[in-house]
Amino acid sequence: MSAFQRASREYKQEGTNIQIGKVTVGGGNKLIIAGPCAVENSEIMHRLVPALKDMGVHVIRGGAFKPRTSPYSFQGLGEEGLRILKETGQSVGLPVVTELMDVRDAELVYEYTDMIQIGSRNMQNFTLLREVGKMDKPVMLKRGLSATIEEWLLAAEYILAEGNHQVILCERGIRTFESYTRNTLDVVAVAVAKNLSHLPVIVDPSHATGRRELVIPAAKAAMAIGADGVMVEVHPNPAEALSDGQQSLTIEEFSLLIKEISKMAQL
Amino acid sequence: MSAFQRASREYKQEGTNIQIGKVTVGGGNKLIIAGPCAVENSEIMHRLVPALKDMGVHVIRGGAFKPRTSPYSFQGLGEEGLRILKETGQSVGLPVVTELMDVRDAELVYEYTDMIQIGSRNMQNFTLLREVGKMDKPVMLKRGLSATIEEWLLAAEYILAEGNHQVILCERGIRTFESYTRNTLDVVAVAVAKNLSHLPVIVDPSHATGRRELVIPAAKAAMAIGADGVMVEVHPNPAEALSDGQQSLTIEEFSLLIKEISKMAQL
Amino acid sequence: MSAFQRASREYKQEGTNIQIGKVTVGGGNKLIIAGPCAVENSEIMHRLVPALKDMGVHVIRGGAFKPRTSPYSFQGLGEEGLRILKETGQSVGLPVVTELMDVRDAELVYEYTDMIQIGSRNMQNFTLLREVGKMDKPVMLKRGLSATIEEWLLAAEYILAEGNHQVILCERGIRTFESYTRNTLDVVAVAVAKNLSHLPVIVDPSHATGRRELVIPAAKAAMAIGADGVMVEVHPNPAEALSDGQQSLTIEEFSLLIKEISKMAQL
Amino acid sequence: MSAFQRASREYKQEGTNIQIGKVTVGGGNKLIIAGPCAVENSEIMHRLVPALKDMGVHVIRGGAFKPRTSPYSFQGLGEEGLRILKETGQSVGLPVVTELMDVRDAELVYEYTDMIQIGSRNMQNFTLLREVGKMDKPVMLKRGLSATIEEWLLAAEYILAEGNHQVILCERGIRTFESYTRNTLDVVAVAVAKNLSHLPVIVDPSHATGRRELVIPAAKAAMAIGADGVMVEVHPNPAEALSDGQQSLTIEEFSLLIKEISKMAQL
Repeated sequence: MSAFQRASREYKQEGTNIQIGKVTVGGGNKLIIAGPCAVENSEIMHRLVPALKDMGVHVIRGGAFKPRTSPYSFQGLGEEGLRILKETGQSVGLPVVTELMDVRDAELVYEYTDMIQIGSRNMQNFTLLREVGKMDKPVMLKRGLSATIEEWLLAAEYILAEGNHQVILCERGIRTFESYTRNTLDVVAVAVAKNLSHLPVIVDPSHATGRRELVIPAAKAAMAIGADGVMVEVHPNPAEALSDGQQSLTIEEFSLLIKEISKMAQL
Repeated sequence: MSAFQRASREYKQEGTNIQIGKVTVGGGNKLIIAGPCAVENSEIMHRLVPALKDMGVHVIRGGAFKPRTSPYSFQGLGEEGLRILKETGQSVGLPVVTELMDVRDAELVYEYTDMIQIGSRNMQNFTLLREVGKMDKPVMLKRGLSATIEEWLLAAEYILAEGNHQVILCERGIRTFESYTRNTLDVVAVAVAKNLSHLPVIVDPSHATGRRELVIPAAKAAMAIGADGVMVEVHPNPAEALSDGQQSLTIEEFSLLIKEISKMAQL
Repeated sequence: MSAFQRASREYKQEGTNIQIGKVTVGGGNKLIIAGPCAVENSEIMHRLVPALKDMGVHVIRGGAFKPRTSPYSFQGLGEEGLRILKETGQSVGLPVVTELMDVRDAELVYEYTDMIQIGSRNMQNFTLLREVGKMDKPVMLKRGLSATIEEWLLAAEYILAEGNHQVILCERGIRTFESYTRNTLDVVAVAVAKNLSHLPVIVDPSHATGRRELVIPAAKAAMAIGADGVMVEVHPNPAEALSDGQQSLTIEEFSLLIKEISKMAQL
Repeated sequence: MSAFQRASREYKQEGTNIQIGKVTVGGGNKLIIAGPCAVENSEIMHRLVPALKDMGVHVIRGGAFKPRTSPYSFQGLGEEGLRILKETGQSVGLPVVTELMDVRDAELVYEYTDMIQIGSRNMQNFTLLREVGKMDKPVMLKRGLSATIEEWLLAAEYILAEGNHQVILCERGIRTFESYTRNTLDVVAVAVAKNLSHLPVIVDPSHATGRRELVIPAAKAAMAIGADGVMVEVHPNPAEALSDGQQSLTIEEFSLLIKEISKMAQL
């Protein structure tokens, strides 16, 4: 028996489907999450979100609390960001996902969002994992920068062990010696995680590559290997984004990604 | 200007096509190389190679000189292996590829093979690179275990600088902290190498994953991101292979791979 | 100017000295922290701590809240562990250090301890960093498993930016491809961190190596390169330790370490 | 039994001593090798080598064949470099070491040198290993950029298996995600290699750090953990060195290193 139990295929053979708003993740459906790295203001969201909706996006992403390497970088709008995110999602009838960083914000974030994201840097923040394990909303668990697949599944196990079985795994690149890309997309980890676990697995090609021109190719590879979806950073004007501009797609580029993904999904 | 010159897109904008026997690599064609890790004996080759030919394989692979971590492991049949490889290739009318490890074997290997492989461990064996740079046969240059993409392209530059422009790059996984897979397939490196260079890029999903059940998924991801082909280890009886048995496909498994690849190629 | 400000040598040229109980860290003094991985019960602590005191240990360590990869591993005694740790420290007149994992436990841990540890997995738990940044007690900040030196110093910057300037950096090994040791001790990072920053830097040879027989050699290398001290796991009976037994020294082995360190310190 | 046999402590318990000229490596003696990265011309060597001799250096290093990442970088003087190296060594009565890259140069290099270096990029150039395995001169085997300790010892085994038992291992830093230093010195690998093998182990702090200001600290850590010596790049005018200038010590800096090392050696 593997060290992870509730997350394992031995524990539950058939793949787990997870409901976010009206969307079902898993079971052959391909989830598309898109939005800006951070919620910057209401105007940008209102320019972006209806366009994403029209292109078939299922869930809107946007950070309100941003984990930044430097304390002097933009840290997100906090509750104001949550409010804008929820409001724009509702205006087009789409669910939203945002990151929770602080256990003390758990109730607040729970109120404003349809899915809760645990970021890479917090993949082994076990108190945070336990907290979202007690919730009745889906959790998207990003793989840590240098987490093995086993550690990632054990982090999921922390959530499942508390009773919340709605966990979506998200591969977002690992840290290696290669510095041309921001991280190294471990695309095979998607196949491994799906072999070992019944949980759905999506891919974040934006963080995995860190370069706009590589986001679409990486997304295609992810779909080809059987990912249950992708999460992509889109910004109406990446050059002016307050964070992650160099890896954000424009709306036009994103429409190309959608076309490519659709072709892959037909296979 | 990049540090690599003749290998760069600035030097030559359109992609390079390379001829191996009757096959053209590049230009949208998808190269399929298959065969055993090592040439073990004539009988196995004669069981395997006609089947590969029937499934549409373009080039037969097989090691005669094997770079083994331990001096006490099977080191390959040497010239006898070259002879068997060439003879079986000719029996079905297919070109063959094999690894050259020692500059002193250059002429010998040149005689018996249609394409020369430089293995990962020799990617920065600069004297060997120079030697194959003087040949008039295609060279397949595998990425080193911990080589950056830039170092890989500079290794190609060594070959091109000597006058041989027929270089095919082969991504075969890099070394990271993750130990579930033998290596980590850096699938995005295919897109990067193709952006930076005009040379064709193929993928070796067998060494990249090291596990039979992951070879097909990895090959699909490779094709989706735009690889110009794949090289796959196949053995009639992997359980008895003298090397790399755990990552070799059976003939039946390989026929599945061919079907999956064909679907991807239609995109 | 570097991205980190208050943590940098440009900001403050002379090295920072930090007071823990009666001990001064920095300024040539060599800090020795020792104790079990986890506080397991009162009896073990009372067997161990007086012996450590006699050998010249300055601070007693012991985990009450343990960050464990699996939710099914021993998680620490919680407040009971804090109580035992403080009580044993007081019984011999030594300060104690323990890990804080959850911002909601901040006041509790503050009460029971003389220095607060931020563990590797929480090095980029920014809300936790901010919380200890508001305290008036020393903080020991362990380097993350795959954190660059710059990220480590920026994590310290989070604490300093809140007003707490009593930060001790702790190198504890990074994650690499080498699997013989649990981690790879980046001993040169000590010299780098001391060049770039005025903060004291200590080393944890127990986690860096993960193997008992390597703890003393690693500690010697750390002292030779200028570390301001070491933190070592010691257990009266490592074979029965509830965690990290294979890297814990016996009391006898630890006395050898003390002798070796003393020799180094005389240089 | 371990995969390496002749290199193992089980095979030979007492440490192996190796003679280079009049110097014995191993058995508590501390070997100091110094010289420029590459032999650039006779004048520089004649300015440098007598000074090194006066400071107690045992062996002079200098590259005649340089393994360079780019084919357009300075590749060394070839035989002319060998001649200059040998001649300067003889002028002060010191043995010399230089790198062999090409099996076809084996006899040539053998003639001119007292110890043969196998570089990191060739650690798994098995044909080269076999060639030096047939020689009756000491071989210094540098660890590969991403070689595990086990692979390093198996590379030594290739040499020993051919009959040459005079192998000195050289740790020179491994490739990790940390980019502040050129490589990451795996100082603990020295202790591991000495535990597992009877062969002497030295350290190259110049390549391990890639930065002049870190060479002395790294050398001290190496000596403290029990290395049998160090190899250091020294150049009379690093700013004008044709290769590795940023990591070369001046003669003055090197004299400081000697003082520090002597202190360590007294322990």
